[in-house]
Amino acid sequence: MELLKEKILKEGIALNEHILKVDSFLNHKVDVNLMNEIGKEFANYFKDKKIDKVVTIESSGIAPAFATASCLNVPMVVFKKQHSSILNNALYETTVHSFTKNADYTLTASKKFLKENENILIIDDFLANGEAVLGTSRILAMANCNLVGVGIVIEKAFQAGRKKIEENGIDVYSLARISKLGENIVEFM
Amino acid sequence: MELLKEKILKEGIALNEHILKVDSFLNHKVDVNLMNEIGKEFANYFKDKKIDKVVTIESSGIAPAFATASCLNVPMVVFKKQHSSILNNALYETTVHSFTKNADYTLTASKKFLKENENILIIDDFLANGEAVLGTSRILAMANCNLVGVGIVIEKAFQAGRKKIEENGIDVYSLARISKLGENIVEFM
Repeated sequence: MELLKEKILKEGIALNEHILKVDSFLNHKVDVNLMNEIGKEFANYFKDKKIDKVVTIESSGIAPAFATASCLNVPMVVFKKQHSSILNNALYETTVHSFTKNADYTLTASKKFLKENENILIIDDFLANGEAVLGTSRILAMANCNLVGVGIVIEKAFQAGRKKIEENGIDVYSLARISKLGENIVEFM
Repeated sequence: MELLKEKILKEGIALNEHILKVDSFLNHKVDVNLMNEIGKEFANYFKDKKIDKVVTIESSGIAPAFATASCLNVPMVVFKKQHSSILNNALYETTVHSFTKNADYTLTASKKFLKENENILIIDDFLANGEAVLGTSRILAMANCNLVGVGIVIEKAFQAGRKKIEENGIDVYSLARISKLGENIVEFM
């Protein structure tokens, strides 16, 4: 998606091999027009997948997921991050490791908002090691939902996330795939 | 807003005098059509205020704030909740007490996304004691921004939030004002 790549090159701040700050348009200050274009792009790409719900993880995934769900005219379900295990019978939960924060968190979702055989599209802002998406897909499997696609705004394509998700036969569509990151260096595939 | 009130009466779960669960359409599973109507309503009400930015607090405020910012065609800025003080020179921060969780958190925002004299509209999902809105307004004051209005999806009108905000001369517009809450009881003003 050219509009997004231009924005990354213009406003993104590449600090090192791991960190690209995009807080001026994606996850702190949010460019609503860009986000609505992102939603259109995902909705168009996944339009034949008969999506029943868009699922995302709080909180940076919410804006692109909301824009996508609006275009697809389906509900969005926001999975929650907790600091510790909840052990609530009404919730699904799984432990996810965040490499960014070097810590585990518990990802949860209410059982009542995931129905058997629903077609689910996951939308998230970043894909790196894929732990968040894989945790989300574990919960979808508990609910016997069908994960029919993953839409990512910015993929760090030099990390293992895509490979791990595709190994499960899932289609991953990223709007910007970064092949190389370094201090003031951003290269796309 | 009748559509919202009907939804609250149909799907909201009033547990006691303090807790109204609206996780089937507002803050876990999100009804995107309702949320876009909410955005239109806020945008229409505040249309003459020359809004420069919509500000909200992660994470349940993001969807209604995004819908509102989209209608107003202005950026959204998401204030972040941290578990402890950050003491980062690039951030504004203030301590906010959450009565819901009976704990304090640190609310932060990047200095670079708030400019002097900008007209700011705060959007949030709930108003009860007003602590989150007042914390947000303290940060806006540090940045010398003009807080020109507060839009709330659901107000617990029997709590002190509105009074505390209005004392500062701020216009508070709530789409559903609940006068009484109890086990299976929801009454609007």
